[in-house]
Amino acid sequence: MKSPQRLISGIKPTGRLHIGNYFGALKQFVDLQDKYETFVFVANLHALTATPTKENMLEDTKNIILDYLGAGLDPKKVTLFRQSDVTAHTSLAWIFDCLVTVPYLERAHAYKDAEAKAHEVNAGTFTYPVLMASDILLYDADVVPVGKDQKQHIEYARDIAGKFNNQYEELFKLPKELIQDDTAIVPGTDGQKMSKSYNNTIPLFATDEEIEKAVMSITTDSKGKDEEKNPDDMVLYQIHKLFNDSKDLKKQYSKGLGYGDAKKMLIKDIIDFITPMRERRKKYEENPKLVEEILLHGAVHANDIAMKKLQAVYEAAGLTK
Amino acid sequence: MKSPQRLISGIKPTGRLHIGNYFGALKQFVDLQDKYETFVFVANLHALTATPTKENMLEDTKNIILDYLGAGLDPKKVTLFRQSDVTAHTSLAWIFDCLVTVPYLERAHAYKDAEAKAHEVNAGTFTYPVLMASDILLYDADVVPVGKDQKQHIEYARDIAGKFNNQYEELFKLPKELIQDDTAIVPGTDGQKMSKSYNNTIPLFATDEEIEKAVMSITTDSKGKDEEKNPDDMVLYQIHKLFNDSKDLKKQYSKGLGYGDAKKMLIKDIIDFITPMRERRKKYEENPKLVEEILLHGAVHANDIAMKKLQAVYEAAGLTK
Repeated sequence: MKSPQRLISGIKPTGRLHIGNYFGALKQFVDLQDKYETFVFVANLHALTATPTKENMLEDTKNIILDYLGAGLDPKKVTLFRQSDVTAHTSLAWIFDCLVTVPYLERAHAYKDAEAKAHEVNAGTFTYPVLMASDILLYDADVVPVGKDQKQHIEYARDIAGKFNNQYEELFKLPKELIQDDTAIVPGTDGQKMSKSYNNTIPLFATDEEIEKAVMSITTDSKGKDEEKNPDDMVLYQIHKLFNDSKDLKKQYSKGLGYGDAKKMLIKDIIDFITPMRERRKKYEENPKLVEEILLHGAVHANDIAMKKLQAVYEAAGLTK
Repeated sequence: MKSPQRLISGIKPTGRLHIGNYFGALKQFVDLQDKYETFVFVANLHALTATPTKENMLEDTKNIILDYLGAGLDPKKVTLFRQSDVTAHTSLAWIFDCLVTVPYLERAHAYKDAEAKAHEVNAGTFTYPVLMASDILLYDADVVPVGKDQKQHIEYARDIAGKFNNQYEELFKLPKELIQDDTAIVPGTDGQKMSKSYNNTIPLFATDEEIEKAVMSITTDSKGKDEEKNPDDMVLYQIHKLFNDSKDLKKQYSKGLGYGDAKKMLIKDIIDFITPMRERRKKYEENPKLVEEILLHGAVHANDIAMKKLQAVYEAAGLTK
């Protein structure tokens, strides 16, 4: 039997997830864990580039782990760990730092964007693609699920693997990006892409009241109950179909379903959808010892692989006897 | 009793030492080990910025360790280790990378020099001062012996310590540079500063024949045996007095000592001086197991201190529970 391909992904602890994150990334993730040997790490070292306070870092890390476990990431299938628990990530990144040039890093989209926004970007943001290459290459990952806008990160990882293989020894596999074409772009309550920065989100692990409030704020037009409508043009339906993709729903929207009634249905559909995830999340939240055990187990497994790789790298570069 | 201050220094494995290195740095080092709690590491991670081959890295690392032990570094007094054996150096460097800006690193002298020489400098050379800050701050070093031209490195380490202390928690001591004012600038055989790049060196652990050849090539003027001379103007005397600082020697040089005779004396003085070091070096060279034990012992001790510090840093930044 062919062993499954290995997949790795880092999740950045940056606050509360919304349903756009779920349908845009998290759901795919949960689906992929059955197909790939999956490694998921909380990218807390990457998160440092935004220099969060200790309290925010702890809170966001705790929440992202609970969110992923709640959404269905199965710790029996997936190796889940904190990036900072595997010191080989930064060790390898340094070796890679010595193989890439400053102008090469200056060409990275993410750095150019950061520089355009802030006057003085930190050096972590600048060398970010190198740490990311290390995250991926340490584990001989075959694939890395990314959004279309993150394709360059994987190109950098491939480049850097090639540079090392060329300079020292063929140690690194060239990873591929896994761009899921059917990834939904979820509209926010105002019709723009759902995003925290637009303040138009429906939080993923929200209370019933929060869901109700968010749904009631979804933009609708002023067409009357009996006017003919194209559901695919409606923000309300675009969100609704994520939770209920029956043809029947679409029909109801085309003829006669009033926005008030539709919103009531959507609230119920979201709550029905989220309830089991919310319950699973609560189970983990009430058992922090279990979560720590999962992370410890993940760290041990990840370190085992990563340290072997780093040892091979050290030998190839003459850093160890 | 007040505990001694802690001193740390990295030595870069970059080929054969010459007597300029000995009198310019190594000798001070050997003297300092009695005064300070001394940590010396082979800066093999820093050496990667020049992307040496595996073979060169292994060879240079082995030699620099033997050179230092041969010159009198006492493994019973000093913690001697390979930088790459303590992964906390790069872990802490990443955290510091997120606290310094790109323009700040662009202002570093060493980077500006490198950039002036090469078209495309690697990212390791660019973030070099950050790794160096980590090297120093991990161990709460009080002092770092440096040449006058390296003062900026210690300023950067102090800056970075301050940035961390300010952003997270007062964890780092601000280190001081230890500039030894009486450090000799040793002239090379042609009268310029002794330097591998000028090809004017007298190797430190040379054979008798090499010493003879190098000394015979020392530049002299065409003054006759009996002409009055000022020894301090003579390259030959400036080198000679390092090995024999008696007033008598100076007198001999002032009146009547012919260059041929002087060179013969110098050859003998150098050989007498170097012989015990050469023998000590040979003892270690013939016992690689002993050297590995010294490095292992050093790595264990260094890791013990460094990992405790890194753990405190991780806690302060919310990277660990």
